[in-house]
Amino acid sequence: MKYEEISQETLCKIKSIVGEKNVITDSDMIQPYSHDEVTDPAYHHMPEVVAYAESAQQTADLVKLANERHFPVVPRGAGTGLACGAVPIYGGLVLSLEKMNKILEINEDALYAVVEPGVRTSDLQAAAEAKGLFYAGDPCSGDSCFIGGNIATNAGGNRAVKYGTTRHQVYAIEIVSPTGTIMNLGARLQKQSTGYCLDQLVIGSEGTLGIITQATVKLLPKPQFTLDLLAVFHSVEDAIGVVNKVIRAGIMPTCVEFMDNITIRSVERYLNEKLQGSEEGNYLIIQVEGINEEDLDDKAVTLDEICTENGSSSVLVADSEKIWRARKSFAEAVRAESLIVCKEDVVAPVDKEPQLLHEILLLAKKYNLITRIASHAGDGNIHLNIIKNEELSYEVWDKNVKDMQQELYKTIYALGGRLSGEHGIGYKRKHLMEEFTDPNELEWMKAIKKTLDPNNILNPGKIFDIE
Amino acid sequence: MKYEEISQETLCKIKSIVGEKNVITDSDMIQPYSHDEVTDPAYHHMPEVVAYAESAQQTADLVKLANERHFPVVPRGAGTGLACGAVPIYGGLVLSLEKMNKILEINEDALYAVVEPGVRTSDLQAAAEAKGLFYAGDPCSGDSCFIGGNIATNAGGNRAVKYGTTRHQVYAIEIVSPTGTIMNLGARLQKQSTGYCLDQLVIGSEGTLGIITQATVKLLPKPQFTLDLLAVFHSVEDAIGVVNKVIRAGIMPTCVEFMDNITIRSVERYLNEKLQGSEEGNYLIIQVEGINEEDLDDKAVTLDEICTENGSSSVLVADSEKIWRARKSFAEAVRAESLIVCKEDVVAPVDKEPQLLHEILLLAKKYNLITRIASHAGDGNIHLNIIKNEELSYEVWDKNVKDMQQELYKTIYALGGRLSGEHGIGYKRKHLMEEFTDPNELEWMKAIKKTLDPNNILNPGKIFDIE
Repeated sequence: MKYEEISQETLCKIKSIVGEKNVITDSDMIQPYSHDEVTDPAYHHMPEVVAYAESAQQTADLVKLANERHFPVVPRGAGTGLACGAVPIYGGLVLSLEKMNKILEINEDALYAVVEPGVRTSDLQAAAEAKGLFYAGDPCSGDSCFIGGNIATNAGGNRAVKYGTTRHQVYAIEIVSPTGTIMNLGARLQKQSTGYCLDQLVIGSEGTLGIITQATVKLLPKPQFTLDLLAVFHSVEDAIGVVNKVIRAGIMPTCVEFMDNITIRSVERYLNEKLQGSEEGNYLIIQVEGINEEDLDDKAVTLDEICTENGSSSVLVADSEKIWRARKSFAEAVRAESLIVCKEDVVAPVDKEPQLLHEILLLAKKYNLITRIASHAGDGNIHLNIIKNEELSYEVWDKNVKDMQQELYKTIYALGGRLSGEHGIGYKRKHLMEEFTDPNELEWMKAIKKTLDPNNILNPGKIFDIE
Repeated sequence: MKYEEISQETLCKIKSIVGEKNVITDSDMIQPYSHDEVTDPAYHHMPEVVAYAESAQQTADLVKLANERHFPVVPRGAGTGLACGAVPIYGGLVLSLEKMNKILEINEDALYAVVEPGVRTSDLQAAAEAKGLFYAGDPCSGDSCFIGGNIATNAGGNRAVKYGTTRHQVYAIEIVSPTGTIMNLGARLQKQSTGYCLDQLVIGSEGTLGIITQATVKLLPKPQFTLDLLAVFHSVEDAIGVVNKVIRAGIMPTCVEFMDNITIRSVERYLNEKLQGSEEGNYLIIQVEGINEEDLDDKAVTLDEICTENGSSSVLVADSEKIWRARKSFAEAVRAESLIVCKEDVVAPVDKEPQLLHEILLLAKKYNLITRIASHAGDGNIHLNIIKNEELSYEVWDKNVKDMQQELYKTIYALGGRLSGEHGIGYKRKHLMEEFTDPNELEWMKAIKKTLDPNNILNPGKIFDIE
């Protein structure tokens, strides 16, 4: 891809659109915008300019300018991505939405919220909760990520088992199109059959088809009774095998999270505290909601039976705060072990998950790789972190990882799975996307991108390359 | 649009693809394929040829041939549509999927079914039920419509309040693309963030972006305890106003159906039986599921309180079979009154529904129109049937209907609603689609259609016209 450099004259235009205070070019100050949470410098790239938009109109004017002057625009939320989706690999403009951070409306009667893209997910959750309501989206990075980024990547998280991913929380979005038009897609409706479902096309498109400048999201009455159970299993496959049986028994859990024993011990070291049952085996954390205490008790009894029958050595009512702190410390605990880590985010059908985990452990052994595994077991999404072994050179480790990936992805696709459950493809996985995606499907994606973004302005080089 | 006529030579090719027995050209025999459930002959159009496909490969070969010889292909399921989506307005080939009617798999462990497009919806429901499972899609025409058509129109139905519309029941689809490629979109996954969500783009596109040749749909454990309540209200607005209050109270009903009094009496005449509370007012039918009898009782008490507070004169446990037969007889009862009827399928945000119904009744009075109204009140979808008055000439009635529509749609869009909740746009509403849809949104739809169907072969002239 060839783009024009942002000239002094173009920079003046940018400043006239968003105001002098909302533009930075100083290399120290723009450095944080050269990467997301991926630590490997090979995936970092400096933008030429960073601008903060304060409105949809400013966003649209910037994108129009980019089309005229032919520079790329990379939208950015909190920068908590794990696929380099917000990295400006061709330079150009990073357009930060962090100043568009207002919750514009919470409607208690009609159960929705209207938010700007820079609203922190946990702030939306808290604002809903303050009114006795509930925003179901709950990525593990909720304390730092933005709702705009959640929508752009179709973020998943812990409660997707029962409530679906971010795309299921969204009624409507206002976007700036790749050519700079402000558009409204979707509607605050429970259903419609009025033309193509363009909102769902843009959701999860990682900023390649539109910049989200506003969203109307669903709220629900707050669940009144919830319970967290911790079941400990000697066998990884036994633990994961429970998921289908629970759903089959008519219990729709809110969350089912898995952590393998070595990962539990890593989190213990990081938190410097003893975790329940950590000496026994692998964790399955099951959260259920109920209509009252008795209902919760009934569900706990059924879950105890299912887990015990499936080989669990102990099923306990968990200390919710403690167990979720442990689960949500996964990423930090891994980072504390090593800054050199390959994070996989594969997903498979839930009934194939035990087989997939089994294969992963075999592959790790074969390639002499150290793994830390936490999984949104309830929806087949496995976060496999591969830490660099101290005894291997970077080159050898990196080669082993790549060789393992090849085998892993073949297995995943053979099982009906996909590359990414919730992190997205971004820049980091696009070569794998090219390799493993059905060519016809990929051709459609590229054709749509070319049609809607004829100058390839919005977040180019993400998900796939346009020839 | 200009297409080539299907020549004798092309006909031979068609026969060589699907076999002689699967092609009809006799005008008496193809006549049923000239229309759907819309009775007005102005919306009927004869195809040149009807062919029955027996496989995805045959379907693909026919579509490839159509691209070579430039004739339109109109896919057709059961022909139960209400928007003329399956009417071959440019002649050409009607491609019937009715012979692809096998349930290929029901997986009890992993809770999914694989079906061909010509499977009757009620057959899928029954097959799931026979294994103690549940297919949540439930259009009122379930006894006759096909699952392929449900997916093509994103059919809604009674249980969409709790379970969503057809698009929420679908894991994956196999389609034949507009250029004749067999493609698989979506996957049997609870979540993924692996490129654009093309499955949801095709679902609801009314056969303009692909012909569905297979689908993998979700199954659930069968709800064990359900209860139907009938609340009767003097005021239409009071009845509809209940919906939000029920959801706000933390009860997620499976269905909330509304019928106005004049419609109840129409159904009484059609069924020739007395319906509960028909002398009192308007119906709200609320179905809830529970974990046990006690839970159902608790919910019934809460619902009784909410309805009574909102002005219901009586809240009764309904005879489920009888009340649903009444509700599902709506379309037939209207047809028995008049074959000349305009069927609207508008949808609004649930909290705006009382206002919308109020406006509808005012408009009907203003334009001297006779209405029959049933509504999927739980999701804001109003089926407004306008029957021809005997004392008006067709021309006057038709003009009044069109004038009313103009006012109605302005109101709908002002309230944040849309033209169609579940029937689709098809041929019948495309002029309204053109008039009321945001031009930028419509432009995107057309651009995508042109890109994916460069020869405009698949179901041309539906939803919108391509210039």
